[in-house]
Amino acid sequence: MASKKVVEIFYDVVSPYSWLGFEVMCRYRNVWNIDLKLRPAFLGGIMKGAGNKPPGMVPNKFLYMTKDLSRAAQYFSVPLQHPTDPFVVMFEKGSLAAMRFVTAVQERENGGDKQVERVSRELWRRIWSEDKDITKPESLAEAAVKAGLSDKDIEEVMAMVTTNKIKDKLKNTTQEALENGAFGFPMIVCHVDGKKEMFFGSDRFELMAYCIGEKWLGPQPDKISANL
Amino acid sequence: MASKKVVEIFYDVVSPYSWLGFEVMCRYRNVWNIDLKLRPAFLGGIMKGAGNKPPGMVPNKFLYMTKDLSRAAQYFSVPLQHPTDPFVVMFEKGSLAAMRFVTAVQERENGGDKQVERVSRELWRRIWSEDKDITKPESLAEAAVKAGLSDKDIEEVMAMVTTNKIKDKLKNTTQEALENGAFGFPMIVCHVDGKKEMFFGSDRFELMAYCIGEKWLGPQPDKISANL
Repeated sequence: MASKKVVEIFYDVVSPYSWLGFEVMCRYRNVWNIDLKLRPAFLGGIMKGAGNKPPGMVPNKFLYMTKDLSRAAQYFSVPLQHPTDPFVVMFEKGSLAAMRFVTAVQERENGGDKQVERVSRELWRRIWSEDKDITKPESLAEAAVKAGLSDKDIEEVMAMVTTNKIKDKLKNTTQEALENGAFGFPMIVCHVDGKKEMFFGSDRFELMAYCIGEKWLGPQPDKISANL
Repeated sequence: MASKKVVEIFYDVVSPYSWLGFEVMCRYRNVWNIDLKLRPAFLGGIMKGAGNKPPGMVPNKFLYMTKDLSRAAQYFSVPLQHPTDPFVVMFEKGSLAAMRFVTAVQERENGGDKQVERVSRELWRRIWSEDKDITKPESLAEAAVKAGLSDKDIEEVMAMVTTNKIKDKLKNTTQEALENGAFGFPMIVCHVDGKKEMFFGSDRFELMAYCIGEKWLGPQPDKISANL
């Protein structure tokens, strides 16, 4: 068996397309011969660093994305619901505290990634399914409880989030995504024969499969999409 | 057999992603139970009307698109090659004359669409494969000859392109695309059970198939992609 190809997914829980990409990659981590690396990063830093503007500023694009997200979420079986005010959620409240929290969970987990996977998912669920806050400490703690972290785990994570170590780790991951060419999330980097193949968004899985020599079986590989 | 679903593709030959979408839809017009309508329109009018900015203005996005286009073109088997200076081609030279020409070919063809399909393809081939001009009358005529139009056909088309009828037809199609929610091309509009389902870009075919109740067989349905 050939050695596993490393596939990194750079994401932020404020980004709904990242949720779709994240769930698909988590489903495929045991279907494809890949070593999936979760890379929580800060979308605000990417947009600023790349000089990009949020796509939702163009009215027709905003309307389309709203529709496209709902349609894709249904097809992908991800329980995405639009928050009452996506602009407030994405641009006023933001995700810096949340992504520092996820980064601290990852740092503390040290090698494993079950907790960082579950905490990320619960944060997406709050913001992009239940229209709940992800900026306050109690919001983050609630997500962590749902993700199965103990009170002691959460206390330790909370103590880490404001340390320079965690702030710098999030900054460095964001910087690394920028240097890999990111201008938004999700950005998926596949390491193929010593080269990096990057895929932006949640609509290139078939092409990604082709590039890494795997088969695309639809968004639910355990069920094999009836459509394929 | 259920009646054919109408699928409209709004496109401009200046747009490389439109070429990919156009070829895929032309391949599927006899595979899926659809009535494909070619809708040549003017991308410059869409960008202005929607208040959108070209994605290539963000350096990381430009680099990514260049790579993504080459990779997708290879996967889609479309002989796309980047012109020496895509900015000059797309934003300085533009496609107004070319799209009026395509519109005149369509108007004259009156019902059929073989000529408009072939002329569109030859214009894409000039700009996005052979790095040739598409703004001068002789360039348009050369494309039309390759597309199989006779000298008499071309003479008639040339006489039509500056008429108000053709100018207005192109304007109206562009306006219709905007009213359907376009903010770029290709924009594919599927008419499903009295509703319109819109798909932007050339990366939603699997989802489109799902929405119109058809099977996605990869970008080359006649060969059935080895990847699926």
